[in-house]
Amino acid sequence: MTYCVGILVREGLAMLADTRTNAGVDNISSYRKLRVCGNDGQRLIAVASAGSLSTTQEALERARVGLVAPDTNDVESLASVGSIHRAAFLLGHAVRCVRQEMEGLKQEDVNFEATLLVGGSVETEPTRLFLVYSAGNFIECEPDTPFLQIGETKYGKPILDRAVTYETELDEAVKIGLISFSSTMRSNLAVGLPIDLVVARCGQSRAALVHRIDARDAYFRELNDRWSEALKAAQAAIPRPPYGKP
Amino acid sequence: MTYCVGILVREGLAMLADTRTNAGVDNISSYRKLRVCGNDGQRLIAVASAGSLSTTQEALERARVGLVAPDTNDVESLASVGSIHRAAFLLGHAVRCVRQEMEGLKQEDVNFEATLLVGGSVETEPTRLFLVYSAGNFIECEPDTPFLQIGETKYGKPILDRAVTYETELDEAVKIGLISFSSTMRSNLAVGLPIDLVVARCGQSRAALVHRIDARDAYFRELNDRWSEALKAAQAAIPRPPYGKP
Repeated sequence: MTYCVGILVREGLAMLADTRTNAGVDNISSYRKLRVCGNDGQRLIAVASAGSLSTTQEALERARVGLVAPDTNDVESLASVGSIHRAAFLLGHAVRCVRQEMEGLKQEDVNFEATLLVGGSVETEPTRLFLVYSAGNFIECEPDTPFLQIGETKYGKPILDRAVTYETELDEAVKIGLISFSSTMRSNLAVGLPIDLVVARCGQSRAALVHRIDARDAYFRELNDRWSEALKAAQAAIPRPPYGKP
Repeated sequence: MTYCVGILVREGLAMLADTRTNAGVDNISSYRKLRVCGNDGQRLIAVASAGSLSTTQEALERARVGLVAPDTNDVESLASVGSIHRAAFLLGHAVRCVRQEMEGLKQEDVNFEATLLVGGSVETEPTRLFLVYSAGNFIECEPDTPFLQIGETKYGKPILDRAVTYETELDEAVKIGLISFSSTMRSNLAVGLPIDLVVARCGQSRAALVHRIDARDAYFRELNDRWSEALKAAQAAIPRPPYGKP
C-alpha cells in the first residue's frame, strides 16, 4: 500500500509520499514513490505514485525517455513538455498505454491499476497539481479543496478536511500533511517511513526543499508524540456522555 | 454507506450505528441499523448491520422468526438461542442463506454482501461481541483490540487505535466511539445522524441504555465542537517543520 498527498495553497505546493510497498504482508520493501524531474529553475515536475509498481515505474520511464503523444503524433517527454498540465496529460497517456499492453496478463489476476499525483510548473507558469487516474484521465486541484490524495487515503483525510484551506501557509501545510501521515501510519502497517517531501513556492520551477524523513528524524518523532499527547488531552477534556449513566 | 462500531471493555459493551442508507448520492434515506432483541434481563442481542439493506433485513427477519440450524436441523431463533455465540452463528447462517438465494440476481450487478456486529449476552453469561462476515463466518472481539467496526471504518479508526483499551471505562468508551463518528461524518457524507447507541454492563442481559442521538442532541453537538477546537489547538501547538524554510 501507499499514501501520498499533495497540498496546493496560495503560497505553493507540498507533496508527500511514503516509501513502503508490499505484495502481501510477508513481502515488504522500500521504494521511492515521489520523484522529481527537472528542478533546475526551468521545470519542476514532481510525480507521486500509488498502485502497481511495475505500471508506475514503466509509465514514468516512458514519459522520461519520450513517447508519441496521441494528439500530435510527436514524441514528447517530461523534459520537453511546455507546461505541467501537458506533463499530467503525457503521464496519463503513458499509464494507459502500459496498462493496455499488460492486459494479456489479466488472466493471472494481477491488478495493474495505478494513480499519480503530478505537481509543479514549467518556466514561470503558476504551480499546479493534478491527480492522474488509472484510465489516464486526470483532475486538477482547486482552491475549494486544496489537496489531493492517492493510495490509502481515508485514515489521513479527516485532519486535511478540518485544517487545510487555500490560505494556509506553506510550512503549516507541510505540518498538516505530516499529521495526516502520522494518523495513517498509526492505523495501517502498509504505510511506513521514510516519507519523501517536496516543497515549492508558487511559480518557482526549482523546489525549495527535497527532503527525506526517516525514523531518526527528530521533528517527525516530536510531531508524532505531541499529536498523540494532544489527542489524549483533547479526549480527556471532553465531558463524558450524560445519557443515563450506565 | 454505514458506519457501526462495537467496543467491548472490561465494564461492558457499547454499540453505535448511524442511520443513513444510500443507493447513490441522490437516494438517501434513514434506516435503523442497530436493533435490539430481548433486552428483558434474560437475553440481550444487539445487531448492527452494514451492506445490502435487503440482505440484512431479510437475514434478521429469519433469525427472529426462526430458521433450521445447519448443524442440528432444529429450528432456532434469536428468542431461543442459548448464548450470544449461538446468536452470531445463527445470524451468520441466515446471511449466507439469503445471499445464496439472491445469487440468481447477480446478473443485475447488485451487491448483496452484508456484515453484522452481534453483541450481548444470554442469561448470566459474560457479554461478548462478534463480527459476522458476509460469508457467514465470524470473529470475536478480544481484549487486545477491544473494538470491531463495519461499514465505512477507516476515517474513525485512528482515534479508536489510539484511545481504547480493555481497561477504558464504559462511558469513556462511548465518548471515544462518538468522537470516531464525528471524524467519519466530517469526511463522508454517506454516514449521518441520527446515531443509535446501546450500552450494557458486562453480564447484564438488559441494556443500561438504548438511545438515539439526533441533530438536536446538545452533548453530541458540544463534543463535535470541542473536538474540532481541540484539534485546531493541537495543530497550532506543534512547531512548524525545521526543514529548510521555504
